[in-house]
Amino acid sequence: MPGLADNTHMANSGFSRSQKAGLPPGTLVYVGEPRSSAPTVRVTRFNEQTLQVEDVTDLTSESIGPKDGSITWVDVDGIHSVELVEKIGQVFGLHPLLMEDLLNTSKRPKCEHYDEHLFILLKSAHPAAHKRKIVTEQVSIILARDVVISFQEENSYDIFAPVRERLRAGKGRLRKFGADYLAYALLDSIVDSYFGGLELVGETLGRLEHEAISHPNEKTLREMYRIKRLTMNLRRAVWPLREMMSGLLRDESRFLSPQTLIFIRDVYDHVVELIDILEADRDMAAGLMEIYLSGLSNRMNSVMMMLAMVSTIFMPLSFIAGVYGMNFKYMPELEAQLGYPLVLLTMFGVAMGMLFVFRRKGWL
Amino acid sequence: MPGLADNTHMANSGFSRSQKAGLPPGTLVYVGEPRSSAPTVRVTRFNEQTLQVEDVTDLTSESIGPKDGSITWVDVDGIHSVELVEKIGQVFGLHPLLMEDLLNTSKRPKCEHYDEHLFILLKSAHPAAHKRKIVTEQVSIILARDVVISFQEENSYDIFAPVRERLRAGKGRLRKFGADYLAYALLDSIVDSYFGGLELVGETLGRLEHEAISHPNEKTLREMYRIKRLTMNLRRAVWPLREMMSGLLRDESRFLSPQTLIFIRDVYDHVVELIDILEADRDMAAGLMEIYLSGLSNRMNSVMMMLAMVSTIFMPLSFIAGVYGMNFKYMPELEAQLGYPLVLLTMFGVAMGMLFVFRRKGWL
Amino acid sequence: MPGLADNTHMANSGFSRSQKAGLPPGTLVYVGEPRSSAPTVRVTRFNEQTLQVEDVTDLTSESIGPKDGSITWVDVDGIHSVELVEKIGQVFGLHPLLMEDLLNTSKRPKCEHYDEHLFILLKSAHPAAHKRKIVTEQVSIILARDVVISFQEENSYDIFAPVRERLRAGKGRLRKFGADYLAYALLDSIVDSYFGGLELVGETLGRLEHEAISHPNEKTLREMYRIKRLTMNLRRAVWPLREMMSGLLRDESRFLSPQTLIFIRDVYDHVVELIDILEADRDMAAGLMEIYLSGLSNRMNSVMMMLAMVSTIFMPLSFIAGVYGMNFKYMPELEAQLGYPLVLLTMFGVAMGMLFVFRRKGWL
Amino acid sequence: MPGLADNTHMANSGFSRSQKAGLPPGTLVYVGEPRSSAPTVRVTRFNEQTLQVEDVTDLTSESIGPKDGSITWVDVDGIHSVELVEKIGQVFGLHPLLMEDLLNTSKRPKCEHYDEHLFILLKSAHPAAHKRKIVTEQVSIILARDVVISFQEENSYDIFAPVRERLRAGKGRLRKFGADYLAYALLDSIVDSYFGGLELVGETLGRLEHEAISHPNEKTLREMYRIKRLTMNLRRAVWPLREMMSGLLRDESRFLSPQTLIFIRDVYDHVVELIDILEADRDMAAGLMEIYLSGLSNRMNSVMMMLAMVSTIFMPLSFIAGVYGMNFKYMPELEAQLGYPLVLLTMFGVAMGMLFVFRRKGWL
Amino acid sequence: MPGLADNTHMANSGFSRSQKAGLPPGTLVYVGEPRSSAPTVRVTRFNEQTLQVEDVTDLTSESIGPKDGSITWVDVDGIHSVELVEKIGQVFGLHPLLMEDLLNTSKRPKCEHYDEHLFILLKSAHPAAHKRKIVTEQVSIILARDVVISFQEENSYDIFAPVRERLRAGKGRLRKFGADYLAYALLDSIVDSYFGGLELVGETLGRLEHEAISHPNEKTLREMYRIKRLTMNLRRAVWPLREMMSGLLRDESRFLSPQTLIFIRDVYDHVVELIDILEADRDMAAGLMEIYLSGLSNRMNSVMMMLAMVSTIFMPLSFIAGVYGMNFKYMPELEAQLGYPLVLLTMFGVAMGMLFVFRRKGWL
Repeated sequence: MPGLADNTHMANSGFSRSQKAGLPPGTLVYVGEPRSSAPTVRVTRFNEQTLQVEDVTDLTSESIGPKDGSITWVDVDGIHSVELVEKIGQVFGLHPLLMEDLLNTSKRPKCEHYDEHLFILLKSAHPAAHKRKIVTEQVSIILARDVVISFQEENSYDIFAPVRERLRAGKGRLRKFGADYLAYALLDSIVDSYFGGLELVGETLGRLEHEAISHPNEKTLREMYRIKRLTMNLRRAVWPLREMMSGLLRDESRFLSPQTLIFIRDVYDHVVELIDILEADRDMAAGLMEIYLSGLSNRMNSVMMMLAMVSTIFMPLSFIAGVYGMNFKYMPELEAQLGYPLVLLTMFGVAMGMLFVFRRKGWL
Repeated sequence: MPGLADNTHMANSGFSRSQKAGLPPGTLVYVGEPRSSAPTVRVTRFNEQTLQVEDVTDLTSESIGPKDGSITWVDVDGIHSVELVEKIGQVFGLHPLLMEDLLNTSKRPKCEHYDEHLFILLKSAHPAAHKRKIVTEQVSIILARDVVISFQEENSYDIFAPVRERLRAGKGRLRKFGADYLAYALLDSIVDSYFGGLELVGETLGRLEHEAISHPNEKTLREMYRIKRLTMNLRRAVWPLREMMSGLLRDESRFLSPQTLIFIRDVYDHVVELIDILEADRDMAAGLMEIYLSGLSNRMNSVMMMLAMVSTIFMPLSFIAGVYGMNFKYMPELEAQLGYPLVLLTMFGVAMGMLFVFRRKGWL
Repeated sequence: MPGLADNTHMANSGFSRSQKAGLPPGTLVYVGEPRSSAPTVRVTRFNEQTLQVEDVTDLTSESIGPKDGSITWVDVDGIHSVELVEKIGQVFGLHPLLMEDLLNTSKRPKCEHYDEHLFILLKSAHPAAHKRKIVTEQVSIILARDVVISFQEENSYDIFAPVRERLRAGKGRLRKFGADYLAYALLDSIVDSYFGGLELVGETLGRLEHEAISHPNEKTLREMYRIKRLTMNLRRAVWPLREMMSGLLRDESRFLSPQTLIFIRDVYDHVVELIDILEADRDMAAGLMEIYLSGLSNRMNSVMMMLAMVSTIFMPLSFIAGVYGMNFKYMPELEAQLGYPLVLLTMFGVAMGMLFVFRRKGWL
Repeated sequence: MPGLADNTHMANSGFSRSQKAGLPPGTLVYVGEPRSSAPTVRVTRFNEQTLQVEDVTDLTSESIGPKDGSITWVDVDGIHSVELVEKIGQVFGLHPLLMEDLLNTSKRPKCEHYDEHLFILLKSAHPAAHKRKIVTEQVSIILARDVVISFQEENSYDIFAPVRERLRAGKGRLRKFGADYLAYALLDSIVDSYFGGLELVGETLGRLEHEAISHPNEKTLREMYRIKRLTMNLRRAVWPLREMMSGLLRDESRFLSPQTLIFIRDVYDHVVELIDILEADRDMAAGLMEIYLSGLSNRMNSVMMMLAMVSTIFMPLSFIAGVYGMNFKYMPELEAQLGYPLVLLTMFGVAMGMLFVFRRKGWL
Repeated sequence: MPGLADNTHMANSGFSRSQKAGLPPGTLVYVGEPRSSAPTVRVTRFNEQTLQVEDVTDLTSESIGPKDGSITWVDVDGIHSVELVEKIGQVFGLHPLLMEDLLNTSKRPKCEHYDEHLFILLKSAHPAAHKRKIVTEQVSIILARDVVISFQEENSYDIFAPVRERLRAGKGRLRKFGADYLAYALLDSIVDSYFGGLELVGETLGRLEHEAISHPNEKTLREMYRIKRLTMNLRRAVWPLREMMSGLLRDESRFLSPQTLIFIRDVYDHVVELIDILEADRDMAAGLMEIYLSGLSNRMNSVMMMLAMVSTIFMPLSFIAGVYGMNFKYMPELEAQLGYPLVLLTMFGVAMGMLFVFRRKGWL
């Protein structure tokens, strides 16, 4: 199926939003695409000197909890296992409403301050490998004292790979600064993930524009509709980020140190750029439909002109032929030696005259 | 009658909004769809230990009024009986303007603080059983000390069933917390009622999109118009909820305890999500009309092309036949032995030439 | 002339807005439709015990001025007499700019606080008797100590009839409360006057929608344009009311007592409902044009299909007939005994084939 | 060239905005239409008792400067002479940036407070004598202690004539109040100048609406485009006035006395009315294009119907004639005595049948 | 390739925005069009008495750093050399994030206050020499104590030429005032650069409007789309300037003296004018599409009319000829002496009748 799309339309399985409607608040239910792979939990503990990465299956306070003298990053890939999320919640004392939110992939990006955590929920977006889809994924980041917990939906694409790489390399601020800088680095990589997707959108819009002018057809129409909806979904994912970021910048939560806030301001700038690009894309997508209609009208016009020309030339000629096909007894022209050639000449003259008129009208 | 609709267009009976115009303020008049069934009043009294549910017909201070040591929920199904509402009003000392409002199903959602009550008026929306209609219903909730009174329009669909169920189960916060938490639970179930309706709207929009591209017709047009109006009505019901909720959150009325306010914030989040979905639906509904027109143009284009092709092929051929149907005496070709086959060959050549031109133009 | 309209387009007589442009401020000039009937002044004096209504022609401080112990309502029908307005102004000491405003029917609704009066200027709207027009009329209300003066444009329709009726009945708050409650009652009846008009607009929109889909024609187009303009004019009359009402509610002018302000809040709610309805109507009116174009395209499509079908069937048939109408000497088919029936059969086959193709394309 | 237009498009002479770009700030350059007539300077000095009007050519502090005991109004017609403006600037000590602004007719309306002057720059608009154009003109008003200086672009139309007239008449506030009241009177006459123009716009819109429905053509299209642009330009001239006026009302500059501020509030009201009318005009102008397209579609529809009817009637008839024009040897009908009349009858029947179908389809 | 365009679409080389996504903050990478020419650094040192201009290749604190008693302007043409920018950064102690920003040509205009510098990043725009393109270029200005550093993207067009000229001339404020006035002068020349581009846009829009009405074709459509996008890009470059300027005006950074702020206010006014013009252009560009479609419809209409007329005239005539071409044995008209001329006359009459009908319908 060609045409850029996204994965927003959930499969008809798992819990849907409306099925969840009747449940009491704080009930933990996974709302999202069903997944079969097992979730993984990777714990990274580091300070300026040491770095230790471990895949954990036994989720205890020992194995994933905070440890003095180092910063702990619990990186969860896969939120479709309610038990796993519940266990992590128990270890870190997460609020039931917080857990309910991070299990629900249909939530709006938001940022909430709990007593012990800063909870950030947003969506990432990156082009799929085959460049035909923008994959959006819900990511939650929980920042506590010396601990960062991140939840991703699936594990096929590792959006945090550059962060992991920089941690391993051991240079730069990432190992020196606190947990809040790590949270910033994760946020930054999520926000940057949109740029690739938007470049793909831009290219597709350019291609569709070309198509809509030159050879508009039903397929173009479908693609246009799809990209319009994609842009709409991306906007819904990105717009709340601005509010969220400026909220982080404005309010003096104790979770973010001033030196990290400078970098959050940089992320804020990126979000504003994303919004700029998205608004431009939306305008272009909206304009495409007009272009498409114009392209269709152009085609129709040329078809009609051709029809009109053919009719205008051949109808008079056929009429003349019809006249001399009549069976009247007394039609002097029919007897004339030169009747036939003269009629042919007349016909030729009429056709030429018509063509001349068309040319003067600019049809040819 | 297929096509998603709602019940906003009132039947031409009962009082209409304009007939009510001349009456003095505080006059109790039912404005809404006429109904024949008798209203029911169900009184639930509960505390952490006990729960007692009773259908009441004799409305006295004894039977429905507040009782010490337990929370009383008076659940009224049917507001088309002015006397019933008046009696309840007398028992609880409701303000005449409040009663006037809850009898008028054409009111805008709002929240008002009276000295003794908090009055919340809003609309619920759920898909009808046959999935062809979104049923909207006016619901009023009055919160007083240890008392919650709820008014619904009709009793065919019990929007409060999950709340009732949780009360009966006796676990969780509902039985432990106060009347304000019950009011929250009712509000929550009303707001959640929209999600089912919106999923239906989403599906219908998807189907219409497909139809508008592939085989646009008058029926599609009617349906599109209907769903556009439906979305518009839902927006009018949902937008004021945001203001209402943020009003509840902001102002420190003594009716809501801080622990309940945290849950109200959750409802506020749901309302914002509803608005997000509705805005997206509105954009899609608006775009459908463009798609429809494009689909029509596409069809027209293919019809015109066919017409043009047939004309362009057969007009020259008929002309040739016409020429040799002329009755001139001296037409040497007519005498020729090979005249007929040669003319047929020429005709075939002309037709092939035309088809070749069409193919090169991309029409075939 | 069918189609819902309003009386906004002034007749080309009397003073127009631009002719008034050069005059110094405070010059009293009537700007509005010319009227021939004589204005009437009705003075109602009442307190809780007594009520006295009188038509006054001699405008003196005695006859229309305030009287101790009772509330005076001077109800003027017809503002096209500058002298009359001037005399009333002298009696009550109205400001020249105030009088200039109330004589100018092209003014925007507004509310102004003078030292001795509260001046409210707005428009009423009610359906005309024949239900073909919305009649808008400028109404001014001046509230002073124990005095209410109201000015209406014409006297064919008595918008204040219900108020008069309630005064006469003598029950309720109207006779008990002060002049400000009377002013509120007038305001309320003016705002309520819109509901009837809007119901008419709603019905007309529904009818036009049906027409635009089923049999769009030039008349529909004209009506659509007219109702669009009507909605626009109503919006211009209603939108400023919200600001006005919230101004009345907000600022603590000494003209309105707190008990009346509660009722003003009710009027404010009505204004917000009016705006809601009007916005929905505007959206529908805007959508009508799209529907109309779609309806036209639908019709054009079916016309074109019919044309294409007829041409596609008969052009090949005529061509075949033309071939066998040629006068070649050697055409073996012509001599064959079964030539004629076989050709007729062929023609029938071609026609059937075409119809089969059309059916498969979904044209039939 | 018919069709309402304005003079916004500058002639390609004089300095254009971009040529001025490189110059240092404060460089005095005239940006506007080139003009040949000589500018005139008229000095009016008045107090309650005396009035003295003089055309001045020698610009000295003596001839145009302030004089004790009277108010001085320097009224300059024509700003295309940089030297003249410079001389006046020297006499009154005007700031270079102020002079640069008043020479530049492409400036946006604004109001600036200098230490010694209040500088107001705006545009007037009045219909040209032949009613085919709205003439906009830049006007600057400088208010200083006992002095008002006004600059207009040209002198063919005297926008200040009514003010001059009222000064001469000597009655009213103009002669009694200070220079600020004179400045108000000038402002008022400028703002009122728009009403005439807008009435012309309204009439033209009405005419175009009629044309777009009844006989849409290329000329209509051009006019529609022109009036749309005109409305746009008027909006750009009027919108900033609101901000300017509310600025004058809000800030307590020492240039305007409280008694004059009351009148400024009146001008503010007029500006708001202008904006209301302009917005309505803009909506109508925007709607015209839709109407035009609908009108075109209507026409096209009727043309197509006619074509379809003619084709549908004559194609079958011609086919029948063609069949009996075939030259088969054995065609029994040809020999029949009643063949010819029966065929004619059949043809007549087919034609009638077609017409009947058309009538039932509502085409006739 | 004709049609106004801009250089916003980057070549597919160098770093793109998305490739930069994974890098840690502060990494210096050039994002922009690849360039081959070597960057140049010109150092101008001046005070009221002396002026010294020098092209520098060896970037040391000596050669480009600040010098007591004179103001230093470091003017860099070409930012594609990361090393060069890094060296300058070292000399002046620029912040890594600042350098990262000025190397990234896809940044949004902004203004940031660092401890030692004021950093301004914006875009210039001027028409290319061949008048077919608007060239936009990123410019950064860094203002420090007695130092201004400016970075431009390329060196083919010298946007700062007028400033350089005025410095050399030695008159005016530029040499007398401080570094902040120089920064203002640079800002001013950048903002003024837009006016030329916008005049070109205006002319192109006018030309396209003419084309869209008179002879709409695919090329027009492409151009329209291109200019729409161009306007969109210019808006994205200009809108943030307003915020930036008002930020400069509002906050009391120590970098701008009060006397310079007055001139900054002038630049702010220019930005507001730019926005006004751009908004008008955008409206016009948006309207062009409608005009184009109307123009197409107009053409289609006239083509269809011609087709309809030809068909309507010749179909009946051919039918008549067909009737008398039938081979019935008994057709009395055929034998009549006057049959042929009478039929010809009839045909002539029918044709005349049709033409008369067309004329009455206003088709001719």
